[in-house]
Amino acid sequence: MTEQLVEDLVAGQADDWDLAGAVPEKVLRELGAAGLLCPEVPAGYGGRGATSRWAGEFTAALGAHCGSTRSVLTSQSMAAGMITRLGDRAQRAEHLPRLCAGTLAAVAFSEPGAGSDLSAITTEVRRDGDHVVVTGHKTWTTAARYADLVVVVGVEDDGGAAVVVPADAPGVSIRPVENPSGCRAAGHADVHLDHVRLPATAVLGGGGQPSRLLVTAALGYGRLSVAWGCVGILRACLAAASAHAASRGQFGVPLAEHQLVARHLAELLVAERTATLACEHASERLDAGSPDHVVAAVLAKNVAATAATRGASSAVQVLGSAAARDGHVVARAYRDAKLMEIIEGSTEICQLLLARHALSGGGTG
Amino acid sequence: MTEQLVEDLVAGQADDWDLAGAVPEKVLRELGAAGLLCPEVPAGYGGRGATSRWAGEFTAALGAHCGSTRSVLTSQSMAAGMITRLGDRAQRAEHLPRLCAGTLAAVAFSEPGAGSDLSAITTEVRRDGDHVVVTGHKTWTTAARYADLVVVVGVEDDGGAAVVVPADAPGVSIRPVENPSGCRAAGHADVHLDHVRLPATAVLGGGGQPSRLLVTAALGYGRLSVAWGCVGILRACLAAASAHAASRGQFGVPLAEHQLVARHLAELLVAERTATLACEHASERLDAGSPDHVVAAVLAKNVAATAATRGASSAVQVLGSAAARDGHVVARAYRDAKLMEIIEGSTEICQLLLARHALSGGGTG
Amino acid sequence: MTEQLVEDLVAGQADDWDLAGAVPEKVLRELGAAGLLCPEVPAGYGGRGATSRWAGEFTAALGAHCGSTRSVLTSQSMAAGMITRLGDRAQRAEHLPRLCAGTLAAVAFSEPGAGSDLSAITTEVRRDGDHVVVTGHKTWTTAARYADLVVVVGVEDDGGAAVVVPADAPGVSIRPVENPSGCRAAGHADVHLDHVRLPATAVLGGGGQPSRLLVTAALGYGRLSVAWGCVGILRACLAAASAHAASRGQFGVPLAEHQLVARHLAELLVAERTATLACEHASERLDAGSPDHVVAAVLAKNVAATAATRGASSAVQVLGSAAARDGHVVARAYRDAKLMEIIEGSTEICQLLLARHALSGGGTG
Amino acid sequence: MTEQLVEDLVAGQADDWDLAGAVPEKVLRELGAAGLLCPEVPAGYGGRGATSRWAGEFTAALGAHCGSTRSVLTSQSMAAGMITRLGDRAQRAEHLPRLCAGTLAAVAFSEPGAGSDLSAITTEVRRDGDHVVVTGHKTWTTAARYADLVVVVGVEDDGGAAVVVPADAPGVSIRPVENPSGCRAAGHADVHLDHVRLPATAVLGGGGQPSRLLVTAALGYGRLSVAWGCVGILRACLAAASAHAASRGQFGVPLAEHQLVARHLAELLVAERTATLACEHASERLDAGSPDHVVAAVLAKNVAATAATRGASSAVQVLGSAAARDGHVVARAYRDAKLMEIIEGSTEICQLLLARHALSGGGTG
Repeated sequence: MTEQLVEDLVAGQADDWDLAGAVPEKVLRELGAAGLLCPEVPAGYGGRGATSRWAGEFTAALGAHCGSTRSVLTSQSMAAGMITRLGDRAQRAEHLPRLCAGTLAAVAFSEPGAGSDLSAITTEVRRDGDHVVVTGHKTWTTAARYADLVVVVGVEDDGGAAVVVPADAPGVSIRPVENPSGCRAAGHADVHLDHVRLPATAVLGGGGQPSRLLVTAALGYGRLSVAWGCVGILRACLAAASAHAASRGQFGVPLAEHQLVARHLAELLVAERTATLACEHASERLDAGSPDHVVAAVLAKNVAATAATRGASSAVQVLGSAAARDGHVVARAYRDAKLMEIIEGSTEICQLLLARHALSGGGTG
Repeated sequence: MTEQLVEDLVAGQADDWDLAGAVPEKVLRELGAAGLLCPEVPAGYGGRGATSRWAGEFTAALGAHCGSTRSVLTSQSMAAGMITRLGDRAQRAEHLPRLCAGTLAAVAFSEPGAGSDLSAITTEVRRDGDHVVVTGHKTWTTAARYADLVVVVGVEDDGGAAVVVPADAPGVSIRPVENPSGCRAAGHADVHLDHVRLPATAVLGGGGQPSRLLVTAALGYGRLSVAWGCVGILRACLAAASAHAASRGQFGVPLAEHQLVARHLAELLVAERTATLACEHASERLDAGSPDHVVAAVLAKNVAATAATRGASSAVQVLGSAAARDGHVVARAYRDAKLMEIIEGSTEICQLLLARHALSGGGTG
Repeated sequence: MTEQLVEDLVAGQADDWDLAGAVPEKVLRELGAAGLLCPEVPAGYGGRGATSRWAGEFTAALGAHCGSTRSVLTSQSMAAGMITRLGDRAQRAEHLPRLCAGTLAAVAFSEPGAGSDLSAITTEVRRDGDHVVVTGHKTWTTAARYADLVVVVGVEDDGGAAVVVPADAPGVSIRPVENPSGCRAAGHADVHLDHVRLPATAVLGGGGQPSRLLVTAALGYGRLSVAWGCVGILRACLAAASAHAASRGQFGVPLAEHQLVARHLAELLVAERTATLACEHASERLDAGSPDHVVAAVLAKNVAATAATRGASSAVQVLGSAAARDGHVVARAYRDAKLMEIIEGSTEICQLLLARHALSGGGTG
Repeated sequence: MTEQLVEDLVAGQADDWDLAGAVPEKVLRELGAAGLLCPEVPAGYGGRGATSRWAGEFTAALGAHCGSTRSVLTSQSMAAGMITRLGDRAQRAEHLPRLCAGTLAAVAFSEPGAGSDLSAITTEVRRDGDHVVVTGHKTWTTAARYADLVVVVGVEDDGGAAVVVPADAPGVSIRPVENPSGCRAAGHADVHLDHVRLPATAVLGGGGQPSRLLVTAALGYGRLSVAWGCVGILRACLAAASAHAASRGQFGVPLAEHQLVARHLAELLVAERTATLACEHASERLDAGSPDHVVAAVLAKNVAATAATRGASSAVQVLGSAAARDGHVVARAYRDAKLMEIIEGSTEICQLLLARHALSGGGTG
């Protein structure tokens, strides 16, 4: 049924959305109303209560069709995850059912001067009686352009605070990033917060969490979701490259029989398989409640994003000019995958985290 | 003076042209009228008589600003080169001075079913008295959208024929490739030739050349020009990445002091240097009239195009979201470089040619 | 208990064995007598009845200590696997209990002119009444130097035949490969068979199997075993590199804090994890009796062998001259891993097999 | 004549020397007596006065035959270079003619705790009247086992000092590194200096040079020589792989026609060519007296050593088991090349130096 919905709503349209730079809001609302943009929300809050493994497979399936729509799913799920982990009972009861019914949400984390370096965040959350005032500038907030709610990560005194900010609150302005180099229809936007005054209940869990916890809550989910999205990219590339190689000829021989083409197909298959295994492993650790799911997700993200970049590059070589137009699934893959290498913990940040883990003598087994 | 012209006409505008998908024709005409789009045409024909080495350096300088304008130069120079090498005295006298005065030309080689495989070319050149009739479908013809003349490579009986076709001849229709994935403003177009009737003097050298010779004439120049263009891409990436790393900080330390960033800079420098050395070497062999310039150009193209793809990928990692918008020099580099890996002899075709050379015991020294 | 045995017999001695070019026969006999060189033989035949998963983990553990001893295990298990799959009940009853009690066996497959190309095998199995006569030259037969029995793959008329040949049968001569470049103590040898006359019952299953089946039986097991061995190499390299990076300093800073060192550790961790996941997956498919275990094993071998080569290279960079002497675990890893890339289906052969699988639309999931 | 000497003395013997772990001293003495181990020493001091370019080509030619003998040349030339650059007239007159007549010399730089980090050097040079006393422990000193003289780099007060130490001076003991992992016959040794008392005239230039200068003098030459040696490795690999691919068949087709084999040949050719161009460029800058020869040499070393490691790996894949025995030119290449990646400035150190150069806005052109 979910497959049918994706088939009906998304399949075959992603090329156009990529060129147009936007997914029709109607599509996002329908996916959202089916609970598919945050499938892991527990049934008690109106969600599907999906396992990470199920959500991952769905993410890959959606991502194979459209990296932009998949990005919206990742954002919605990150927001839902933060509300679930950081919010109190009332906040969960207030927001989660809405997210499962079609309300769209984004998480605003990066700032012009603070990407992976959370200690550099300057967005301020200031108490004012039973209200808070939020001021700051967030950038490259995925899905913000579509969002009804934005979970904003800021600092308060010496701690962190995640605040649920309605997109239409006075002082909020959301300006789309123009011509993003990948996931062109993912609704990336800058979020400007100019003394946005909200009831103190907008602060998840009342605030005062260590910044580190906020980041873990946000990025932990995001990384694994992005990793599964990259699996989708690889599946789309493998399918496109195999189909092309099987149907075309060159120098009087089927393209697939040229070993230099076969090599690309083999590398794509290896990329898809290792990325899938790494993602399955991380999801299984998460579903099992094992604390090592955090490092497993970092590893999955690192493996999948770099594999997707390489794999898309292989697919371009196989298809040649047949894929060399914007919008084409392989051209999108080439661009979307690279964006995945610089967000939610760049390849370099992942490497430093993994090295630290290696030095601690830890495994991810 | 040439530097000044490039500075005035091109610098700082390539981002907009990339987004718009077109270089203003005025710019191309001015560069053409200065003889800069085919600088190697001998002075006797109105050209600058530049060496391959000089032309290469100019190509890199132009390519560092704008890969699309550089592509137009490559096309114009390929056309001029074919007329010089294949044409008779009258044809050279007719066409070359015009090309050096601003007339724009393209070379139509690839067909939907024939990329690097010239034996698959189906465009037909048929004699009809003292005329010829050309019928066929060329695709991905760089710069065709801007061209006044198109040199069309076809087959005649069991040989090849290169025909100079006016873009406005009856039966010619030129349809731009929509949304090309790289060099977005290079004017790539499909060229449809529907019984285009021309005087037999339009056939360079009277026709009857072996197809192989036509390809060598066309691709030989094109490969080296593309290689120099990739050097330009690498220089732009190295400059952008170095400047970014020097000016930004992360985790309280200048970005450049993070060794994982430094590594990207080192690899960019190595890429730029090895590509440059390979191009200089090939140009020097060509200028010296040595027959090994052909394999040296294949090697230079292979080295430079793969180095540019890798280098652009490194630059994206250094700049992160700062470069992640279409039009930005590094985002253009990432896309343009990849296109260079699939045209004028893909990386795979180059590898097969180089292997054959290695087996023949040959060097390129 | 098995861990203790490995600890007592193998740990800490592999450096010396590598330098000496031989594992003491006593060690191999003790491992063999404990049923550890072919742990998957069913209990009914005196074996441990281990799953592929258990055997794989043991193989990795042994391989982390000593690639040569692990190679002997792979050979013994391949021989046992061929007898199990190709032999009749009497042959299984005759040979398997002996293999589980310490008799050592090898599989002779490659010939000077036939590596992966089984159609090129020339070793002849000729019927002579109720006997067969085997004549041929096998090369690079792992463990042959230690073997009591050699399973020889030959051709008979238009089919294949696997013959159990006692190493001391008249006409058999076994000549060690001198100074092999990796797994120096694995007992690689050439096996010359000069009209070796044996009872026809020496032919597994009576002969007449398609050559393809023989190869699948032999290489299928061998590939997965080699893959697990490469996991062991990676674990040894990761441990050695992490320990070195944690304990040494350079430029006044712990080595591990140099990001270019950290990157090697991260890549080693990623290599070890992806190789492990691919091996676990293939073993699970085999244990589940799924036919896709064959392609899963090819993929695991490809992933693990290339990862081990790269990983060992990273470890060399981390340890520098501290590892730059023959025998050292990292120096052995660098050489042993590369040998793994050219045996049991080279990286190139694996790529062609995987490409064929990709084209068939198959997954390995 | 030099070619003939190399042909007579070295060609065809390197396999045996590698296995034996030593080059016959007679061979080294004859090469030394012909001035070929330090060909750049000016004619005025009895040398050949060769250019860096000539010396480089000779180094590559020797290195193609034997990496160990080439290492001895590098050491001898480094020693001669340090004496030339740091010594006074009397020291030059005393030592250089001897080095050109067959006296063998090494440079002792690395210590157990100090590889590329010269600030960590602890070898002490202490004044005692008109004598100096040298105490310390040098490790992995190439060619020390053969050396008559060792140029020892130490510290004196707050500066550096390079001292010419006779190998037979009281207090000197030279212990060969056992079983080095590459260049097995290069005579690597630990040099222990236990209160070695020498006339103060043994200190080059009187001492007191900044340590940095000593390193530049020593490593600057060494890097370029090693780079040329790597070119030799690549030439040997390219020749061996091409010959093998041309003469063998697999699956009924010449090996060279398998594109996955052709790809290795192409990559070897590209590696050899780019390494050669980078070395030629650095030598030309040095011969022209340009200060940018230093960074050009770092780049050449980085390019050539990494290319040699990759290239040797490709050659192993092409030759398979045919090259898988110690001593074989390709097996030696695989090991020797990797050693070149960790000495005279590891790949990582080179990357940091090149990044610094990139940030300074410098080119090497």
